[in-house]
Amino acid sequence: MRDAKSQLEELKLGTVDVISEKELLAKIEKSVKENKPLRIKAGFDPSRPDLHLGHAVLINKMKKWQDFGHHILFLIGDFTGKIGDPTGKNETRPALTDEEIQENAKTYAHQVFKILDPAKTEVVYNSHWMSKMNPSDFIKLTSQYTVARMLERDDFEKRYSTHQPISIHEFLYPLVQGYDSVALKADVELGGTDQKFNLLVGRDLQKSYGMTPQCIMTVPILEGLDGVQKMSKSLDNYIAIEDSPKDMFGKTMKVSDDLMIRYYELLSDLERSDLEKLKVDLSSGKLHPRQAKVNLAKFFVSRFHSPEDADSAEQEFNRIFVSKGLPDEIPEKIIEAQDDIWICALISQIELASSNSEARRLIKGGAVEFKGEKVKDEQLKVTLTSGEDFILKVGKKKFAKVVVK
Amino acid sequence: MRDAKSQLEELKLGTVDVISEKELLAKIEKSVKENKPLRIKAGFDPSRPDLHLGHAVLINKMKKWQDFGHHILFLIGDFTGKIGDPTGKNETRPALTDEEIQENAKTYAHQVFKILDPAKTEVVYNSHWMSKMNPSDFIKLTSQYTVARMLERDDFEKRYSTHQPISIHEFLYPLVQGYDSVALKADVELGGTDQKFNLLVGRDLQKSYGMTPQCIMTVPILEGLDGVQKMSKSLDNYIAIEDSPKDMFGKTMKVSDDLMIRYYELLSDLERSDLEKLKVDLSSGKLHPRQAKVNLAKFFVSRFHSPEDADSAEQEFNRIFVSKGLPDEIPEKIIEAQDDIWICALISQIELASSNSEARRLIKGGAVEFKGEKVKDEQLKVTLTSGEDFILKVGKKKFAKVVVK
Repeated sequence: MRDAKSQLEELKLGTVDVISEKELLAKIEKSVKENKPLRIKAGFDPSRPDLHLGHAVLINKMKKWQDFGHHILFLIGDFTGKIGDPTGKNETRPALTDEEIQENAKTYAHQVFKILDPAKTEVVYNSHWMSKMNPSDFIKLTSQYTVARMLERDDFEKRYSTHQPISIHEFLYPLVQGYDSVALKADVELGGTDQKFNLLVGRDLQKSYGMTPQCIMTVPILEGLDGVQKMSKSLDNYIAIEDSPKDMFGKTMKVSDDLMIRYYELLSDLERSDLEKLKVDLSSGKLHPRQAKVNLAKFFVSRFHSPEDADSAEQEFNRIFVSKGLPDEIPEKIIEAQDDIWICALISQIELASSNSEARRLIKGGAVEFKGEKVKDEQLKVTLTSGEDFILKVGKKKFAKVVVK
Repeated sequence: MRDAKSQLEELKLGTVDVISEKELLAKIEKSVKENKPLRIKAGFDPSRPDLHLGHAVLINKMKKWQDFGHHILFLIGDFTGKIGDPTGKNETRPALTDEEIQENAKTYAHQVFKILDPAKTEVVYNSHWMSKMNPSDFIKLTSQYTVARMLERDDFEKRYSTHQPISIHEFLYPLVQGYDSVALKADVELGGTDQKFNLLVGRDLQKSYGMTPQCIMTVPILEGLDGVQKMSKSLDNYIAIEDSPKDMFGKTMKVSDDLMIRYYELLSDLERSDLEKLKVDLSSGKLHPRQAKVNLAKFFVSRFHSPEDADSAEQEFNRIFVSKGLPDEIPEKIIEAQDDIWICALISQIELASSNSEARRLIKGGAVEFKGEKVKDEQLKVTLTSGEDFILKVGKKKFAKVVVK
C-alpha cells in the first residue's frame, strides 16, 4: 500500500471538509501498518437513478480510495425510498416498489461501474438492517440525539425559524443514515457538502453505540455548464454519465476556461502535481485552453465510453467545427421533425434570413451550405428526422446547429 | 340510558377541559339514540403502581362514565414501560420486564376495581399493537406531527427555551399515546390536566388516520393534605388507596374545611344538586364542618374498604380523640423503634417537656397519659415497635401523636 501521508494528500484533493484530518491520518496509518483496508461508505438515493458529472465528483473520490486499496461500500438508501413521503405532500418522493428499487439499482450499477471497479465494490441496501428494527430499537436510536442538535441543521433551522413545517419523521432520516454507518462499521463516510450534517450524525451515533467514530470527507457540489448554478437535470446544465460520446465531447468544449479548471480539479484523475503543471502551462501559454478542453473532453469520453470513442468524438468534432472553420460556439436551433420542408422556409424559420425571399436570394448567390454541401436548387425540399442535427451556414459568418426534435 | 344532556352535566362536574362540549354532546346523543356505549379511554403508567386519591379523581370520572353505561378502556402503557429510558439518564425509569408489568397490572387492578366494576372494564396493554409496528409504520406515525407543534407542549417549550436537552424519542411518546386512541377507536379520552397536550395529539392522529376525532376531558391535579402542593407519595401528603381504614379516616379528618369541599367535589360521587346542598348547609351552619369531614372520611373508607370498616374507623376515632377530649389536629412526632426507653427520656425527646427532670416532675404531678393510661411510675420503661402509633398527653393541652418508624 502507498504510504499514509501520501494517500491522505491525494485523497484531500478537491475536498471541502475532512473531519478530522488527524484521526483520518491515524486510520490510514493503521490500515497501512496492518495491511487492512478501511471501510469507505457513500450513500445514494435510489429514487433518482440518472447520474451526471455532479455525482461523478463523489464517485471519483470513492475511486481514489479504491485505487489505494480500500473497501468501498456503495450504499443504496432503499429503506427510506420504500417509504417515500408518508405525508403525501411531496410528489417527487413517491414510495418505490422493490422492483423499481432493483431496476434503479441496476441503472446505478451500470453508471458507477464506469468509474468504480465492480470486483472491489460492495453494494449494500439499508433496508437490510433497517427493516429488521423493532419499535424499541427505533426508540433507542432516536434517544441518541436531541431536538436542539437536529434543529442546528441548516435547512431545519431555516424552516423552523421561518415557521415552515418540519414533520417529525424528517428528524428520523438523518438518524437512519447515521445508523447505516453503525451497521456497516464504516471507517470513513463520503458525501457532498450538503450532506455534512448527516455524515456528522453518523459519527456521533457510532460513538453512542460504542464504536470508533467514522471520519467524514465532503466534496463540493459541482457547478453546471453555465458555471453558476449547481449541475442538475432540471436546470439542463449537465453532462449525463449516459450522454453519447458526441454530446459529452461537445458539451465539454463549450465550458468557460475557468470552469474547465474546476472540472479538471474535481472530475479528472490527475494527481496534485499534474494539476499544478496544467495551470502553469495554461498561464504561460504553453498549453492553449482549447487543447486543454479537448484533453478533458477526451478524458470524459474515455472514462464513460472508451478511448476509441474519445478519438472518434474528437475527429467528428474537428470535421464539423474546426476543418470547416466553424467557431466553437454556434447557436443551436431546435425544430420539429417534418417531411419535405422547403429549404427557404427552413432558413427563415431558424432566423438565418429575415424572409423566404431573402433566403432565395442567398441561395441564388451561392451563400448557403446545408449539411456541408452548397445548396444550388432554391426549390429544394428536405426531410428533418427526429434526433438528427446538422449545420446550416449562410455566408461566411452566420451558422446554426439545427437540432431536430 | 339517561338522557344525553343530563349525562353531560354530571360528567362535566369537576373537569377542567372538555374539548369540545358540542362534539361530546353529539356523541352522547348518538350513543343514547343507538343504545351503543361510547368507548372511554384512560391510560396509566405501569411503572408506578401505588395509587392514591390523586389518581382516584380520574378513576372516579371513569366510574361515572361506566355508571352511565359506557365502555371503559383501562389502558396500561406497558410499551413505553418496557423500553424504560433508553438514554439511561433517568434512574426513575428503568425498563420493566414482562413479569414486573404483569405484577404491577395486578396491583393496579386490585386498587382500581375498588371503584370500577371489573365486569364492565376492559383492560388493554398498548404493547399489543405497538410492538407489532414495523419501522415504516413508525415513520408514517411520526410524519403526522410537526416539530413546531410538539415544541408547543409546555414542558418541551420550557426545556427548549432554557436549553435543556430534549431527546428525539421524547417526541415519540405523545405520538404513541395518541396512536393508542387510533388503535382503540376511542370516542373519549380522560386524563389529568397535565395530559391535555397528549390527549389532543390523540385527537389529531385519529383525524390523520381518517377517524372521527375523540373528545377529551381533563380532571384537575388533586391537592395533597397540605392543601397546597399536588398530592404525591414523595411529598408525603397523600391518602393511598391501600391505606388502612384508620389512616384513611384520620388523614381525612385533618384536612382544612376548604380542602374538604374540594375533595367532596373531586372524590365523592355526589351529584351536582347534592353538592350544592352540602355547601348551603355548611354556610348556614346546618351542617358542622366536622360532621361533613366524618361523612367524607366514612365515604372513603366505605369505597376502598367497606361500610363496616367505615363504622369501625369512626368509632375508633371517636374513642381516641372525641371522648378523650383530644383536638382534631395534634402534632405528629416520628421516632425510631427501640426497646426499653425511659418514659421521661421519651417525653423530653418529643418535646412535651424541656428536660428529663421536668418530665419526672410532670409524672409525679399525675399529668402524663401514655396510650390512654395515666403514668404513675416515673422509672417506667417502654418498648416502641416499628409501625405503631399512640397518643402521649401532658397536662390538659399538650398532646403528641407518636409514630414509631
